[in-house]
Amino acid sequence: MNDRPTFHGVIPPLVTPFTEDGEVDVATLEQVVEHLVASGVHGVFPLGSTGEVAYLTDAQRRLVTSTVAKATAGRVPVLVGCIDLTASRVVEQARQARDAGADGIVATTPIYAINDSEEIAGHFRAIHAAVDLPLVAYDVPVRSHARPPLEVLLQLGQEGVLVGVKDSSGDDIGFRRLVRGNRLAGNPLALLTGHEILCDAMLLVGADGIVPGLGNVDAAGYVRLYDAAVAGDWDRAVAEQQRLVNLFDIVFAATSRSADARGVGAFKAAMVALDLLPSARMATGVEPLAAADDELIRTVVRDWQAAGSQEPSA
Amino acid sequence: MNDRPTFHGVIPPLVTPFTEDGEVDVATLEQVVEHLVASGVHGVFPLGSTGEVAYLTDAQRRLVTSTVAKATAGRVPVLVGCIDLTASRVVEQARQARDAGADGIVATTPIYAINDSEEIAGHFRAIHAAVDLPLVAYDVPVRSHARPPLEVLLQLGQEGVLVGVKDSSGDDIGFRRLVRGNRLAGNPLALLTGHEILCDAMLLVGADGIVPGLGNVDAAGYVRLYDAAVAGDWDRAVAEQQRLVNLFDIVFAATSRSADARGVGAFKAAMVALDLLPSARMATGVEPLAAADDELIRTVVRDWQAAGSQEPSA
Amino acid sequence: MNDRPTFHGVIPPLVTPFTEDGEVDVATLEQVVEHLVASGVHGVFPLGSTGEVAYLTDAQRRLVTSTVAKATAGRVPVLVGCIDLTASRVVEQARQARDAGADGIVATTPIYAINDSEEIAGHFRAIHAAVDLPLVAYDVPVRSHARPPLEVLLQLGQEGVLVGVKDSSGDDIGFRRLVRGNRLAGNPLALLTGHEILCDAMLLVGADGIVPGLGNVDAAGYVRLYDAAVAGDWDRAVAEQQRLVNLFDIVFAATSRSADARGVGAFKAAMVALDLLPSARMATGVEPLAAADDELIRTVVRDWQAAGSQEPSA
Amino acid sequence: MNDRPTFHGVIPPLVTPFTEDGEVDVATLEQVVEHLVASGVHGVFPLGSTGEVAYLTDAQRRLVTSTVAKATAGRVPVLVGCIDLTASRVVEQARQARDAGADGIVATTPIYAINDSEEIAGHFRAIHAAVDLPLVAYDVPVRSHARPPLEVLLQLGQEGVLVGVKDSSGDDIGFRRLVRGNRLAGNPLALLTGHEILCDAMLLVGADGIVPGLGNVDAAGYVRLYDAAVAGDWDRAVAEQQRLVNLFDIVFAATSRSADARGVGAFKAAMVALDLLPSARMATGVEPLAAADDELIRTVVRDWQAAGSQEPSA
Repeated sequence: MNDRPTFHGVIPPLVTPFTEDGEVDVATLEQVVEHLVASGVHGVFPLGSTGEVAYLTDAQRRLVTSTVAKATAGRVPVLVGCIDLTASRVVEQARQARDAGADGIVATTPIYAINDSEEIAGHFRAIHAAVDLPLVAYDVPVRSHARPPLEVLLQLGQEGVLVGVKDSSGDDIGFRRLVRGNRLAGNPLALLTGHEILCDAMLLVGADGIVPGLGNVDAAGYVRLYDAAVAGDWDRAVAEQQRLVNLFDIVFAATSRSADARGVGAFKAAMVALDLLPSARMATGVEPLAAADDELIRTVVRDWQAAGSQEPSA
Repeated sequence: MNDRPTFHGVIPPLVTPFTEDGEVDVATLEQVVEHLVASGVHGVFPLGSTGEVAYLTDAQRRLVTSTVAKATAGRVPVLVGCIDLTASRVVEQARQARDAGADGIVATTPIYAINDSEEIAGHFRAIHAAVDLPLVAYDVPVRSHARPPLEVLLQLGQEGVLVGVKDSSGDDIGFRRLVRGNRLAGNPLALLTGHEILCDAMLLVGADGIVPGLGNVDAAGYVRLYDAAVAGDWDRAVAEQQRLVNLFDIVFAATSRSADARGVGAFKAAMVALDLLPSARMATGVEPLAAADDELIRTVVRDWQAAGSQEPSA
Repeated sequence: MNDRPTFHGVIPPLVTPFTEDGEVDVATLEQVVEHLVASGVHGVFPLGSTGEVAYLTDAQRRLVTSTVAKATAGRVPVLVGCIDLTASRVVEQARQARDAGADGIVATTPIYAINDSEEIAGHFRAIHAAVDLPLVAYDVPVRSHARPPLEVLLQLGQEGVLVGVKDSSGDDIGFRRLVRGNRLAGNPLALLTGHEILCDAMLLVGADGIVPGLGNVDAAGYVRLYDAAVAGDWDRAVAEQQRLVNLFDIVFAATSRSADARGVGAFKAAMVALDLLPSARMATGVEPLAAADDELIRTVVRDWQAAGSQEPSA
Repeated sequence: MNDRPTFHGVIPPLVTPFTEDGEVDVATLEQVVEHLVASGVHGVFPLGSTGEVAYLTDAQRRLVTSTVAKATAGRVPVLVGCIDLTASRVVEQARQARDAGADGIVATTPIYAINDSEEIAGHFRAIHAAVDLPLVAYDVPVRSHARPPLEVLLQLGQEGVLVGVKDSSGDDIGFRRLVRGNRLAGNPLALLTGHEILCDAMLLVGADGIVPGLGNVDAAGYVRLYDAAVAGDWDRAVAEQQRLVNLFDIVFAATSRSADARGVGAFKAAMVALDLLPSARMATGVEPLAAADDELIRTVVRDWQAAGSQEPSA
């Protein structure tokens, strides 16, 4: 598979572990990375939404990137989220990420600003022009609201501005059309999906890689899913996915708190239950899940372990 | 009117003038401030959406604040927009604003993050705890998406965390209920509206101040409007407002480009037409209006001048 | 005021009383109409959203219209909501309304269909061409989703297709621009606002009439508010409005159930508390409010009565 | 495959052909049905969004249903859209559909009304109680806005109120969770997807059937796609789907007019190009596509035919 893009396969968006006083827990972050690499992932993506990037200061972001870059030690590429309002500010994030060891950067459309298609294209061109690292567009309308139009993505791929798209749009019709457009253009873009529970389907459709937050909890499962899909063993891919759909119930277990707390909080609580994290502490600014929700999540994990023929390689 | 809150009256959200190479045009910014103060405004609000804050780096933001603080020289308070993703990052903006001379700061709900009411309250409490400056909540869902709930605003006003609310929500029903709740709580909050063409109505409802982007173009008109309202001369207030409604057509004149370009671009183009700015250049990242749109805006301004009995005091 | 449009002043959207078996309670509906007319309203609007029109069969709608037409007996005009998916179906509703005694009809933009501006204009033209009754456009995006563009409304007013607009959009900036455009066009449109708690402000802005659901509960208060506004006594208008803002808390008292139940349910519960209705029963398909919510509403009404110098003329 | 639900396989939502004076073109509708049945479809779905149901009067709807029921003559089941605002009105549509020969009915959540989950459940229960025909819930938020919650769908499946769900939500994460919940409940629901260009993926996920508007244009292609999926030949299914993705470009060819015109209009224009329809006329209320758009659609169809190894069986 020499023709696979640099960013392909299973690339989990890393959770950011915190100490009890709200600082980045460097030692645990190293262990998380080590566990993922040992599980066979093809890359890691720190400072995404799952990494609670919005809550981190510049100093904390720098520490996360340098820690992850050191921990991976070149074994898999490190794709770093550079999340800020507009290009002029994203460039500053991107330079810091580059200096801290990033192999590639991920940027959304402008946030807070309200731009048209040409301005959105200019935004990515400005980032690319300023920072000599592969650039992946992050399509996450639930957070950045404006979407990069299909035509802009394909155009920027052909220009060499973008090397990929991380799709968390929920718009699978758009994703299919992106797959087709990308093929007609000679596959300039690595197409990555963020849909935890549709990875089999999106790989069937033509995704190059998957970026599942749930991959922090069961990386090995996603690696098996991906390998099955690449091998054309769709029955096996679906079976692995269904096992992960069951596990994904952790995200719906919590009814207290915000979407940020319920999502990342569920991943962290499950990682604690599986001894992958010492604490489910979230970033300062995110309230912890209620104890009852935490217990529900542990129950989902326990039932899932009991039901599964394959244990996650914790 | 000794009982008016510190932030009251006409507080225009300042445009940020740029040089042709995209840097902050300090000399022109000083002139804009001088013109507004001479027109009788009661405060200025740099680094709001009208100030294209999203496109400015930290260094540019610092320069804007220090320039405005020096130019006002204590004659009117300077309320500085501190726009970033979450409290930990807003605090850094706020400290910089304080050091550069801000008299108060303005912060939105968390951006990019997805929080619940309690987390939103915690967000403002964290900013207030970290920076000893009056804090105004900025309710601008078209940009920051999440809204601060009415109960949270009133609670934070009573706690002394917030001194005011800048309402750009478009939710006038909510604004009326906020006015009432604030009165029942002893008026802890200064209530400011961002609706350029409903200032008369919102002052009737009980707003303490108005923050019209169009105030960059005709500050004197808004001061007359405000004075008429305070004096209970509603016929006069409505007449002034209607004159400004006519002028506001500049915002609808442009059909090219993004909402950011059409809004701020129209203000800047009209200021050029009125010799209040040497150039309509917008921040790097915002495309200029088409020449035809610029011409339409000039025509609106010309017709408006011809029709009006009162000239703006350019 | 000879130049007032036919539809002006206070035009409450009538609640529809139901018997315990879910049929239209004709006798009570007659009493509701009689009470409103005696309170000085300038028109009535059966079969709007407040009238739970969506839940009524054609036979029930016909019965409501004929009952209201008989009860008003020409003393005030009857404006009937003809709510259906598209023009071909609205026309059938409109013919039935005309035959049952309507003086005018109210229609939304197409529902379920997804149309452009020209098709929306064609929709109203088709209704007007088929039914020889004054036609009012109902702008209620929370229910019909598509909005009639400002230009379309003004164009249709000038064509004689529309005689008015009932604005429940919440877009007061748009309303102000509609007022101005209508004046420039010679006032072809009667502009009616549905904002219960912004009637003073919208009358200041230039509304011709108000269509408050809360007018079922305190019609006399809205008539006083309107009369004060027409007389230019804005202090008095604001005072009456603030009294009604307090009463409007009934709508926020209920936390159980749907928006439909909480809104109309609160009006009906308050009417029961004020002996204006024998039962708060809602249409089949809408669940009753919880008893605790009902009690909260009664408390709001009681406190409101205790606080007010003027009793509603029940 | 004895355990397949009654409604499964390829069930195209039928276009409604119109004569030049806007009446239902009965003879052509019979031919469309005959063509589809001959192409191997497993059911037909008249009076869906693709059938322009929103624009049809009751009399026209009755005529469509009776025509389709006669034309299918029991060879495949006829699932009829009963689209109206709330249960009381849907029931009237459903009775008419039953009397005209429907084998099952399809209903959305309440339209225009704003209901909670319990009221939405009650809505479907009321329809089921009143009309003794299999009932399929139609989840189409772009038109009916409110969505039936996952838990409600599963509960109603287990109660026997619903026999299926037609998913046009675009929410594939929800669809996957629906598939899983339905399996755990013993598969009470037939799960049908409306995603024209994700049929392979949704069949992989576990859909029982597909309801592609594009199936009016190339029914045989969708039948081959479905057969390949049932046989587990995913390479073949994807290849057929990709061929249909190419054809689906017709929907994006048109840039003039509304979404309704561009969607159904493209299907009809392509059917004309393929001699499957004599005229692309749409319902009264929908403007025709521009001639240039029509030409673009013909070009897409021509290129698609030229590229494809398999001709549609016209």
